[in-house]
Amino acid sequence: MSGAAFIAVDWGTTNRRTYLIEGADVVATERDEMGILSIPAGGFPKAVAALRARHGGLPMLLAGMVGSNRGWHDAGYVPAPAALPDLAAHLVSPLDGIAIVPGVCRDVGRRQDVMRGEEVQLLGAIEAGLAPADALLCQPGTHAKWATMEGGTLADFTTAMTGEMFALLKAHALIGGEMAGEVDADDAFCEGVAACADEDLLAALFGVRAASILGRRAPGTAAAYVSGLLIGSDCRARITQPGQRVHLLANGLLARLYSAAIAIAGGEAVLVDSHAAFVAGITRIWDIKS
Amino acid sequence: MSGAAFIAVDWGTTNRRTYLIEGADVVATERDEMGILSIPAGGFPKAVAALRARHGGLPMLLAGMVGSNRGWHDAGYVPAPAALPDLAAHLVSPLDGIAIVPGVCRDVGRRQDVMRGEEVQLLGAIEAGLAPADALLCQPGTHAKWATMEGGTLADFTTAMTGEMFALLKAHALIGGEMAGEVDADDAFCEGVAACADEDLLAALFGVRAASILGRRAPGTAAAYVSGLLIGSDCRARITQPGQRVHLLANGLLARLYSAAIAIAGGEAVLVDSHAAFVAGITRIWDIKS
Repeated sequence: MSGAAFIAVDWGTTNRRTYLIEGADVVATERDEMGILSIPAGGFPKAVAALRARHGGLPMLLAGMVGSNRGWHDAGYVPAPAALPDLAAHLVSPLDGIAIVPGVCRDVGRRQDVMRGEEVQLLGAIEAGLAPADALLCQPGTHAKWATMEGGTLADFTTAMTGEMFALLKAHALIGGEMAGEVDADDAFCEGVAACADEDLLAALFGVRAASILGRRAPGTAAAYVSGLLIGSDCRARITQPGQRVHLLANGLLARLYSAAIAIAGGEAVLVDSHAAFVAGITRIWDIKS
Repeated sequence: MSGAAFIAVDWGTTNRRTYLIEGADVVATERDEMGILSIPAGGFPKAVAALRARHGGLPMLLAGMVGSNRGWHDAGYVPAPAALPDLAAHLVSPLDGIAIVPGVCRDVGRRQDVMRGEEVQLLGAIEAGLAPADALLCQPGTHAKWATMEGGTLADFTTAMTGEMFALLKAHALIGGEMAGEVDADDAFCEGVAACADEDLLAALFGVRAASILGRRAPGTAAAYVSGLLIGSDCRARITQPGQRVHLLANGLLARLYSAAIAIAGGEAVLVDSHAAFVAGITRIWDIKS
């Protein structure tokens, strides 16, 4: 039933993006701040009805934190390795005409990991031909996701609390007082990426305080340096071969920071359009389901 | 002039310990919560006078954060490698009959580090024969200090924000909600120490959240596991040879945690009495000065 129109929503914690899709084409899109945290208890049916009414009452396919236990309805997790048909086979439907995509979990040996929302983008990037079927993909952010794709499936993944750690340090750590200045992929950032190759993170972070006390850091550069330590540590742990390509689903500042860190860590970043990846992934799920 | 009585104070951020020393003997000691943060602006002369009056008006030798720019009087830093005579040669005297011991800094190449207060204990441990002249010493805490002693001098050192990171995560991180339960050197702690050998810290910390969502962690064990990840990461970064001895200036819970982590990381912990080390170090400084 490819071609039938539907409404796709990438519904996250703090915002959501809605796409009206006909065939493989996005005929309308909107973004607002109505993430799941902004929806009052019991408020999802009303919020969804309003969204649906604005887009001709079409059926809806939702992905992201809306399917978590803090969202509307827990859509569970399918275990990795997972492909788009696995996601399509485990949709949950809280209301007639509305389905939610499950997340993906990794639960082998001593290491557990979970994702919810990123799986549509990751598998969609392969579906759209934006990344090869065997590739390392990265979605930077509060909780950065690194996915190993094998034969077009999401074979394994790792989440790092990179963005959350930066926010924690800046707001609450002793070195938070030093973390003035804007963050960009500048000299201080690159110095942080380089430094984390020599030193473990807990020691390198205290070094920011010591450098400040000893007058060895230019004012206004510590935030970028700490960002470099964290993103550098994240990239170095994941890039295991020289020249490793990393398909980066990001834009703006995060794309600049991760591209620079990946290069310093010996890899090569390839930018991927994350909206196009999402549309390709969600459309494929819709087609399989229909 | 060894043998003349004096008052030694190990004056930290949140508490202080006072020793009345005659010769090499401690004839009285007291501990209170009057760390430097509890002293109002301009209040040090009064606080010191009260302490001095309680101990017969003897001269005083102060060490620790009282000599920082947030304390009474900035006593500066002497550069590593440093020995007790170097500290004695750089005492500062804010008032007649009162001297403050400087801190030690490490400022070579790209890495800076500072300590203030720990240097007396570290060098005192060697002075007292509690550790050999060539040794790796560790003082765990909010900012854990690891010191390489060579020929009886404090040759180099590294500070890790291990304890501060635990407090930050527990109070403010997403995984803080999971970090219930008491921390001790139990199975969950040892599991954390083991896990951090396989995985980088930013990923291992997010794994705590994933394990909780997937029901793979017994309730009440996450705090000990996270403590194991952090202390394990700290110890693994510092223990570079199998069987490495670590002279541990700690007691109680921190001694148990670091002893367990050092053993799992392939080292061997040797407990050192940190009060005896301080007394030996400060007495030697006093003798050199007199």
